[in-house]
Amino acid sequence: MKAVQFKKTGVPTDVLTVVDLPIPSPAPGEIRVKVSKANIIPADIMFIQGMYGIQPELPQIGGFEATGTVDACGEGVEMPEGAGVIFTATGTWTEYVCVAANSVIPKPPTMSDEVACQAFVNPLTAYGMLIEADLEEGDYLLITAAASAFSKFVIQIAASRGINVIGTVRRDEQKQALLDLGATAIINEKTESIYKSVKAATNGEMVKAAFDAVGGDLGDKVINALQINGKMLVYGLLSLKPIPLNSGLLIFKNITVKGFWLTTWFTSLSGDERRSIVPKILGMLTSETLKADVEATYTLDQIIDAIKHMEAPGRSGKILLDINA
Amino acid sequence: MKAVQFKKTGVPTDVLTVVDLPIPSPAPGEIRVKVSKANIIPADIMFIQGMYGIQPELPQIGGFEATGTVDACGEGVEMPEGAGVIFTATGTWTEYVCVAANSVIPKPPTMSDEVACQAFVNPLTAYGMLIEADLEEGDYLLITAAASAFSKFVIQIAASRGINVIGTVRRDEQKQALLDLGATAIINEKTESIYKSVKAATNGEMVKAAFDAVGGDLGDKVINALQINGKMLVYGLLSLKPIPLNSGLLIFKNITVKGFWLTTWFTSLSGDERRSIVPKILGMLTSETLKADVEATYTLDQIIDAIKHMEAPGRSGKILLDINA
Repeated sequence: MKAVQFKKTGVPTDVLTVVDLPIPSPAPGEIRVKVSKANIIPADIMFIQGMYGIQPELPQIGGFEATGTVDACGEGVEMPEGAGVIFTATGTWTEYVCVAANSVIPKPPTMSDEVACQAFVNPLTAYGMLIEADLEEGDYLLITAAASAFSKFVIQIAASRGINVIGTVRRDEQKQALLDLGATAIINEKTESIYKSVKAATNGEMVKAAFDAVGGDLGDKVINALQINGKMLVYGLLSLKPIPLNSGLLIFKNITVKGFWLTTWFTSLSGDERRSIVPKILGMLTSETLKADVEATYTLDQIIDAIKHMEAPGRSGKILLDINA
Repeated sequence: MKAVQFKKTGVPTDVLTVVDLPIPSPAPGEIRVKVSKANIIPADIMFIQGMYGIQPELPQIGGFEATGTVDACGEGVEMPEGAGVIFTATGTWTEYVCVAANSVIPKPPTMSDEVACQAFVNPLTAYGMLIEADLEEGDYLLITAAASAFSKFVIQIAASRGINVIGTVRRDEQKQALLDLGATAIINEKTESIYKSVKAATNGEMVKAAFDAVGGDLGDKVINALQINGKMLVYGLLSLKPIPLNSGLLIFKNITVKGFWLTTWFTSLSGDERRSIVPKILGMLTSETLKADVEATYTLDQIIDAIKHMEAPGRSGKILLDINA
């Protein structure tokens, strides 16, 4: 079978190669999934660079999130062959992958593969961070990298609850689509003052919470836009630069800065909580209350082009991998 | 009456002057306190520099914390003249000050003025931060500026609860006194690796919480010494430098960084909580379970010398002001 692998960590376009591997056999309790579509998310890039919360076991297949169909069952598992599943695994950019049968989510019959392969990580992170931020109707939330797939989910879920989302982008042409999705205001971080724009958009109230994916000086500006008792959840480090943290601001405005990682948060939930949250998210996606954009689809052989496209500025939708097509 | 005042914010030794002012009259609900001893704490310095959580109303008398005796009562207040009180006010470096009668704490009869004038801010901050950090017996706590009066209170209260305190100092000769107070390990941040020393002192467990008063690169090293789900409470910025915050560390170790300000925390408590905490702290001080060191005492006229002494490196006890002596 074909798979996208890296033998050492590094820049994805340097280290990723397409290899031919034997099709794996499911162990007891596992199923083998025939992968249909896989997602490419920033976490995948960090993992390949050796900067993620878990380290690769080299040689390592890339990718964390995908959708596919049940292809074979290991001992003790009875699932109908061909049934659609949504799943995460360490190494989804491949034609076949074995995963624990009890870790997959049945794919709703009306959901397309394009939506299903991005139905877990981003929507669930958005959902979880909104819970962690403890926001109520009428509250203000500031998000950086507002044009990302993740941020679009945040805007849509928040707007559906009456939470006012203010976002930062780097290009004026990204603004309208986000306002159309339900954002209250979108700030061009290159040309506008975040502090002044947030002050104007919130009538001086400033924001109760912020989600930052960028870090560096932008992270500091975001903290400056928080109100007293405000909270910034950090979930990405796109700038690869540290946030120059002003201790005085933290102390006198009683600010909290906290990391958010889906893995940690999801693990902290009870089984009941997980079973109640996942169907809610799938429901929003199926009903298109939550819309997932796709910008382009590539094959495994085109992985380098796919990564380049993913990292190109001004992209407006997800880059997906079409597998076993 | 004599008072230490500043007409503009700036470096204390530049802007503080001794002035003669009329003795104030207590408004309804207030008492006038004849000040006996006043404390000099880092917050006083930040206030004079215009860097504190509240801004001075110029010209402003310095100092936040003191002890004294009831000198006169405003309308509706009945307190015996000469009764000892512990209090905070904005402007305590003066012979007389008027404060709300219901905001003062009766001074325990066996408590000396030297202890009483430092019985509130530092011990209560130490007590509050230990609550906020949610530490239990056997847990590890890392504190920077471990030789400060505040840190000594932390070490003593924590040790009395079986919490293991690891501290950082800048001079080897500061170590023994802190170990004698109950610290588990003291690290010289100039010559030893904080990460390695914490790892050794905790048998690889690292610390559950940290209290940072310094900021800058030291703050970053402290975050690096936290265990998964760890929490750093920031309460000072002695270095005046931002902490270069590593977002990846925050995300994948689920780290929280939070400001702590006594004013915010104390205001968040219920009346019952306040009434139960303050006597506990006074009890520890009176019984000398909690020891308060004094290094030197100055008069109001000697304020510049007092500040210079306070800011000199390697100091081992508080610098106090002796007023109305």
